[in-house]
Amino acid sequence: MFRNKTCGELRLSDAGQEVTLAGWVQRTRKMGGMTFVDLRDRYGITQVVFNVDTDAALQEQANHLGREYVVQITGKVAERYAKNQELSTGDIEIIASSLRILNSSDVPPFTIEDDTDGGDDLRMKYRYLDLRRPAVRRNLELRHRMAFEIRRYLDSKGFLEVETPVLIKSTPEGARDFVVPSRMNPGQFYALPQSPQTFKQLLMVSGFDRYFQIVKCFRDEDLRADRQPEFTQIDCEMSFVEQEDVLQMFEGLVKHIFKYVKDIDFTDPFPRMTWADAMRLYGSDKPDTRFGMEFVEIKDLTGGRNFAVLDDAEYVGAIVAPGCAGYTRKQLDQLTEFVKRPQVGAKGMMWVKVEDDGSIKSSVSKFYTEDDLAKWVERTGAKPGDLILILAGPTMKTRKQLCELRLEMGSRLGLRDPQKFSCLWVIDFPLFEWDDETQRYYAMHHPFTSPNPEDIHLLDSDTGAVRATAYDMIVNGNELGGGSIRIHEAELQDHMFRLLGLSEEDAQYKFGFLMNAFKYGAPPHGGLAFGFDRFVSILAGLDSIRDVIAFPKNNSGRDVMIDAPSAIDDTQLDELQIALNLK
Amino acid sequence: MFRNKTCGELRLSDAGQEVTLAGWVQRTRKMGGMTFVDLRDRYGITQVVFNVDTDAALQEQANHLGREYVVQITGKVAERYAKNQELSTGDIEIIASSLRILNSSDVPPFTIEDDTDGGDDLRMKYRYLDLRRPAVRRNLELRHRMAFEIRRYLDSKGFLEVETPVLIKSTPEGARDFVVPSRMNPGQFYALPQSPQTFKQLLMVSGFDRYFQIVKCFRDEDLRADRQPEFTQIDCEMSFVEQEDVLQMFEGLVKHIFKYVKDIDFTDPFPRMTWADAMRLYGSDKPDTRFGMEFVEIKDLTGGRNFAVLDDAEYVGAIVAPGCAGYTRKQLDQLTEFVKRPQVGAKGMMWVKVEDDGSIKSSVSKFYTEDDLAKWVERTGAKPGDLILILAGPTMKTRKQLCELRLEMGSRLGLRDPQKFSCLWVIDFPLFEWDDETQRYYAMHHPFTSPNPEDIHLLDSDTGAVRATAYDMIVNGNELGGGSIRIHEAELQDHMFRLLGLSEEDAQYKFGFLMNAFKYGAPPHGGLAFGFDRFVSILAGLDSIRDVIAFPKNNSGRDVMIDAPSAIDDTQLDELQIALNLK
Repeated sequence: MFRNKTCGELRLSDAGQEVTLAGWVQRTRKMGGMTFVDLRDRYGITQVVFNVDTDAALQEQANHLGREYVVQITGKVAERYAKNQELSTGDIEIIASSLRILNSSDVPPFTIEDDTDGGDDLRMKYRYLDLRRPAVRRNLELRHRMAFEIRRYLDSKGFLEVETPVLIKSTPEGARDFVVPSRMNPGQFYALPQSPQTFKQLLMVSGFDRYFQIVKCFRDEDLRADRQPEFTQIDCEMSFVEQEDVLQMFEGLVKHIFKYVKDIDFTDPFPRMTWADAMRLYGSDKPDTRFGMEFVEIKDLTGGRNFAVLDDAEYVGAIVAPGCAGYTRKQLDQLTEFVKRPQVGAKGMMWVKVEDDGSIKSSVSKFYTEDDLAKWVERTGAKPGDLILILAGPTMKTRKQLCELRLEMGSRLGLRDPQKFSCLWVIDFPLFEWDDETQRYYAMHHPFTSPNPEDIHLLDSDTGAVRATAYDMIVNGNELGGGSIRIHEAELQDHMFRLLGLSEEDAQYKFGFLMNAFKYGAPPHGGLAFGFDRFVSILAGLDSIRDVIAFPKNNSGRDVMIDAPSAIDDTQLDELQIALNLK
Repeated sequence: MFRNKTCGELRLSDAGQEVTLAGWVQRTRKMGGMTFVDLRDRYGITQVVFNVDTDAALQEQANHLGREYVVQITGKVAERYAKNQELSTGDIEIIASSLRILNSSDVPPFTIEDDTDGGDDLRMKYRYLDLRRPAVRRNLELRHRMAFEIRRYLDSKGFLEVETPVLIKSTPEGARDFVVPSRMNPGQFYALPQSPQTFKQLLMVSGFDRYFQIVKCFRDEDLRADRQPEFTQIDCEMSFVEQEDVLQMFEGLVKHIFKYVKDIDFTDPFPRMTWADAMRLYGSDKPDTRFGMEFVEIKDLTGGRNFAVLDDAEYVGAIVAPGCAGYTRKQLDQLTEFVKRPQVGAKGMMWVKVEDDGSIKSSVSKFYTEDDLAKWVERTGAKPGDLILILAGPTMKTRKQLCELRLEMGSRLGLRDPQKFSCLWVIDFPLFEWDDETQRYYAMHHPFTSPNPEDIHLLDSDTGAVRATAYDMIVNGNELGGGSIRIHEAELQDHMFRLLGLSEEDAQYKFGFLMNAFKYGAPPHGGLAFGFDRFVSILAGLDSIRDVIAFPKNNSGRDVMIDAPSAIDDTQLDELQIALNLK
């Protein structure tokens, strides 16, 4: 070893010891006859002192150390005169007796500090330097710790981690597959898995009973801000279970992680909310429940006053922003601008202020009497000092707009603290989604999701009303994961495929091996998958998953550090028996 | 839950309890008025009894259960009359009071028994049924347990598991890459990693200090019997270490696994052997040290007798097969046939028998006197009753042939017990391998391997003699893993690339990001990677890694269960801007 101590472990009690440290030069400061070097490694920073009176040549050498030089230093641990409370090693320093330069360094293109001067692009290109910043490293330490605790919990519950293949078969359903030409089977391609869904169901058919895997998945999508072409799932499945068993098991997992990683104890059961309620109260299937401000429907109170905007609206919804009656014209205009942005898409916004003295002001007071408005106030439960914000229009669309407005108000009012965590199960999702464009139903989750047993009789008669035995775990408005009880009877699965417009031939081609497997005694089973990147980013209090991935790709799916993807040799194309066909 | 007990946990102390089990029907037997059902799940088998006197209808239902039906059974635990010592639940049975068929099953194409009647191909096609066999399931349980313990050990030593990307850049060096066309970057391709080598070195540059990952890797090779296009590595790297530190750390890992998974305590340090000694004594860089039978060189004892075969041979090597002096002509002919097989390639074999009375017989006694042969016997240490086997020819070639003969004799003599484990470090590998065909040196490990500091002065003058700071862990003649101390100085790395015939441009194109990274303060570092599939198969006492992979591919790289790879849609090809170019 080039060291016998790390830069994070020395304390006052070590004073007098001779130690050898190795690490990177964080900074050097020359003060009179002393040169101070802050030496950094993964574990911390330790101050090293070179004294001209003790060894002038050594101090001279230290004076020439550049930022990020790699050095090995031997010296004696001594108590500091000026202690640094911000460092765990801040009570001591090393009086250097030898210095060995293990490697020099060019001047890095940005400072290796949490508060760096490097822009996003530069830091991505030099990701290996970005990863030296303690803030970034801590995210990956958190990721390691979480993965370890997830495995510890699931192992203790009898789950087996089984690796499923990465080179599988393309099933053009849902998102696009990444494909891999097979040299040994010319003209044929593997696909990279979008999830191990079918394999984990096969493992249940195989009697594995409890399976999990922390596994890379792949989706060739046009990347939105916070998507990655490769991402990591915590994929789980159990046999002989009903929905309640799955919820209990994985609520336990989430609580275990919060407890052992963040030292947060959730003692109460997580609340559960039906999808219908989530849409009605929050306009979203992943409501941020760190704060209230639920929707109140007031359509029935708005009629008969010749105000076309509300008279013609299918839906009129309100939220109460507590203590915001004092909002200025300008602030209200900003909110109106917010909801009119194309990303939100509302036509406009109405408001009602309940002044501190109980009097009511409104943007629609020329259409409504104070008595009318008083009923709105009563219905919404607004109190003196509160502001009611109202949107109107088609039900689903307006709910989504009101959802955005609610989140915006939550942010403005500081109600979305990233260090506060609110967990929620959303249950009773619809089984199908109707698509106007293709005029057919799609599986809201995937085609293996079991209908709610109570609704099976509606499958043909009222397809859209059938609820799924599906559930999502929501944390702070993010979908942490979701899953379902699966169909285990071949007959019901056939029925589903037919409702989804898959011909028997299609279904056989795409899922034949699964359907065949189901003929040999499939047990009742269900499970779920968590988005691991998201899980880590939530616990890190970050908005983006990119910050919890060691080597992420940019929005064009490029790794700018290694410059991938890239052109390949003609001989490679030739061996694969494919050719470029550029448009 | 469909059960409150598993099929593996009930004992005599549970007698009298009412329980509900769920699982698969292993077999049914009707004996008079009783029907016995063996119910199986992951945890075991429990016998269930249906009695015509208690409930005739229920017994009748049980009589119609087919093999592999999925059922839920409720009943009372009772002591068995005829106990079954082979089952952990063999003291009890369940007196059934209700039976629910959860799913029926077609008759499986082979029996779900350890000793199945299904052939390889059939079992691969129905892998989900093959996985029901306890022997196969136990392999995957072992795999899970090993992965868990590997993580536990490495975590306790401060290693962080960091996920490196799967979609990376093609570097046509060594084996072929699998490539992935990028839709978003037409004409460009990702490659799947053959190993995370460069990324783990970048993580060391990033100051991660101790990294590991259990990770899928990919190699598009023509598959030999025991290779898979996707395989799993335990990939590890450490900073500020020398070879000794790495050996200690990972010897500790291997011992931890043997202790916590197999309950085998290795108290002594693993032996270490130089590559040169391994080649000299065993003709292999991965000697099976479960048994001795080391090579003895006798060239100097064989000259001057006008026997051209030995006179012209560069190398004459012998092994002693203890107690085999009684081998018949037929047995000796078999051995000669064995070494003459094209896979071994020897021209012939000579032998010397030391009879029980000390007299000597030999296949070459017409060329050599008894005195001559007595010297061979003395040199080899053969005792009365032993058989000396001799091969001759060019040194390296003959050593390899003698290695095969030694292994064959070890197998014949029962010296290769799969439940006995012999671990060994092979060290001091050559840094370079000369290739006659291309007339250049290749890196024996990879181009980032550090030369032995003592040999750096030989790099240009005696390139082939330079030893690497590289090491392999060998268990029972299998390479379990290997690694090296890496080059961390840019200058030395440049030198290596030049010796390997990589132009500066080539090196920059292929490894530019790594070489750039090394400019910013790369620490001394080193590591290794274990083949996880092999590690599991060795501990399972199996010859093939296929048996420890849930869904393996066959020798054409096909998954015959899901029928992958397969053709993809023209629209997919179109979107990727590639075309087939079949020969």
